[in-house]
Amino acid sequence: QGTRDHAPAQAALRERLLSAVVSCFKRHGAAAIDTPVLELRETLVGKYGEGAKLIYELKDQGGELLALRYDLTVPFARYLAMNKITKMKRYHVAKVYRRDNPATTRGRYREFYQCDFDIAGQFDPMIPDAECLKIVHEILSDLQLGDFVIKVNDRRILNGVLAVCGVPESQFIPACCTMDKLDKVSTGLMGRHFWSWDGCLRLGSVVAVLVEKSGRYDGLVGMFDAKGRKVPCVGVSIGIERIFSILEQRLEASGQKLRTTETQVLVATPQKHLLAARMKLISELWDAGIKAEMMYKKDPKLLKQLQYCEDTGIPLAAIVGEQELADGVVKLRDVATRKEVRM
Amino acid sequence: QGTRDHAPAQAALRERLLSAVVSCFKRHGAAAIDTPVLELRETLVGKYGEGAKLIYELKDQGGELLALRYDLTVPFARYLAMNKITKMKRYHVAKVYRRDNPATTRGRYREFYQCDFDIAGQFDPMIPDAECLKIVHEILSDLQLGDFVIKVNDRRILNGVLAVCGVPESQFIPACCTMDKLDKVSTGLMGRHFWSWDGCLRLGSVVAVLVEKSGRYDGLVGMFDAKGRKVPCVGVSIGIERIFSILEQRLEASGQKLRTTETQVLVATPQKHLLAARMKLISELWDAGIKAEMMYKKDPKLLKQLQYCEDTGIPLAAIVGEQELADGVVKLRDVATRKEVRM
Repeated sequence: QGTRDHAPAQAALRERLLSAVVSCFKRHGAAAIDTPVLELRETLVGKYGEGAKLIYELKDQGGELLALRYDLTVPFARYLAMNKITKMKRYHVAKVYRRDNPATTRGRYREFYQCDFDIAGQFDPMIPDAECLKIVHEILSDLQLGDFVIKVNDRRILNGVLAVCGVPESQFIPACCTMDKLDKVSTGLMGRHFWSWDGCLRLGSVVAVLVEKSGRYDGLVGMFDAKGRKVPCVGVSIGIERIFSILEQRLEASGQKLRTTETQVLVATPQKHLLAARMKLISELWDAGIKAEMMYKKDPKLLKQLQYCEDTGIPLAAIVGEQELADGVVKLRDVATRKEVRM
Repeated sequence: QGTRDHAPAQAALRERLLSAVVSCFKRHGAAAIDTPVLELRETLVGKYGEGAKLIYELKDQGGELLALRYDLTVPFARYLAMNKITKMKRYHVAKVYRRDNPATTRGRYREFYQCDFDIAGQFDPMIPDAECLKIVHEILSDLQLGDFVIKVNDRRILNGVLAVCGVPESQFIPACCTMDKLDKVSTGLMGRHFWSWDGCLRLGSVVAVLVEKSGRYDGLVGMFDAKGRKVPCVGVSIGIERIFSILEQRLEASGQKLRTTETQVLVATPQKHLLAARMKLISELWDAGIKAEMMYKKDPKLLKQLQYCEDTGIPLAAIVGEQELADGVVKLRDVATRKEVRM
């Protein structure tokens, strides 16, 4: 419960989604790192506040006390501190674990992917922060989810707005808190292009629809360093599961069938006793890097082979019969149009 | 201990390796599936013999008793049975977990990748088995690890050899056992092209150097089916970790540096006060799908920017200075040759 298998159609959809996210991260020059699913329990303790009770712990079977990672941010901070790295732009796409009440229709699971992009290091203000925003914009545009609003909350922006409106500086904090409540009641009132915010007390963090969590965490690395040396960090975490739910529902509604394989050609034979010829041809195709399949039957019927192409969306059939063998050619058939060429 | 972080250079090497394996699996028309890292403890119990004591179990925090998957084969069999699937060609590349004594120099870890390709279903004999062998051959060739021997052990092959040598059928089993011992003493004696085998009692399984485990497991799916319905299966599991160790050591010995990012161009400025111009240009490049970076400094020195290209292997620098802005052009510099063109 709260975890799930991904059948081929889902795995194919997810692969598309993840590859859109990863290519954006690569486009921005991030390097990949990978950390273990298992972390020392003590690494995670005290980093998640209320979330702590959702951490999956391993049974004590001897050795260190372990837990499953709860997010990718704490392992990244641990990694930076352990390796004394003070500057890094990295991405990490991997599963995290939470003993939460799953709400599977809204895409909330106990095992789910996070796609994190983070910039660690001391840099001139706001330049890395701006890149994080740009990334959110690129990914959401790329996925064609429709119109979206990115909400940026930074007290300094709000203070500026209040100053322009003539609110005295001493009233900034109460005013923020009032507006914070307003935001929860009805964001619509504020108009689509108004910068929004999320609580009065957080500084410089970025919140976006469908974006899991993002913002600055300048103190976290210091918690893992013996001397408490801090590394300023800013990042964004894309919550792929909710986007996945939306795309899955949209695909289902459209009645479209997603191909689950990438096979380009089925190697087929129209007569009996041609298994060896099929195996020879398919072997040549594979060696040439062509994605090819054949049916695992000694003597399959041609109609069954063509039916298999239609069922699985294979666009071409390469047919070798007795005549083709004698002539040293292959008959290539376009499954949809039924056109054939000998070559 | 026994798990590890992957720094960018290692992650990049691993990505290359996994992508070679996955493209081979796709070339053979396999669909991807994904199953959770967490399985019910009862799913894994009784499937691994001696291996059972290496299963990582989760602490009982309420709810089902869970364990970390030990391999990808048992989850696949569980998946087939649960979904009543009787025919499927799938691949699965994911991490598995074993509370083993790690031997990190030989690439043995407690968390490691398995790359599995399996064919489930009732088919004409040996055709799927042959494809598994072909896959091992393609992957090992593709990775250019040098010469290799694939050992095929099938009692029927050995029986044939013994029959040809004039051994009476009643002596087949004792002869096999003797030869089995011989194999352990010195395989060299048998010549490189002699089919080898692995124990007298296993039928039809394929064993290859660097290949984790492979062969038939016709009974496993039935263990998860209420009515014990069997689905014949054959598959191959590529042990990426040992190959990874070899490639890592080879890379280290060669002194070569693997690029950890794919950045094609650094957007640079030669004068001060040009941050906005850099951000405008880089934004256009990103939107055009070009992998681009800029330094997170308001006014970086040109030399530092070019140095960054050299350090990280970025081949091109796109330079916008006051003159270029006035002329509406960009100066493109080849970092290695120092040649420049205005465009």
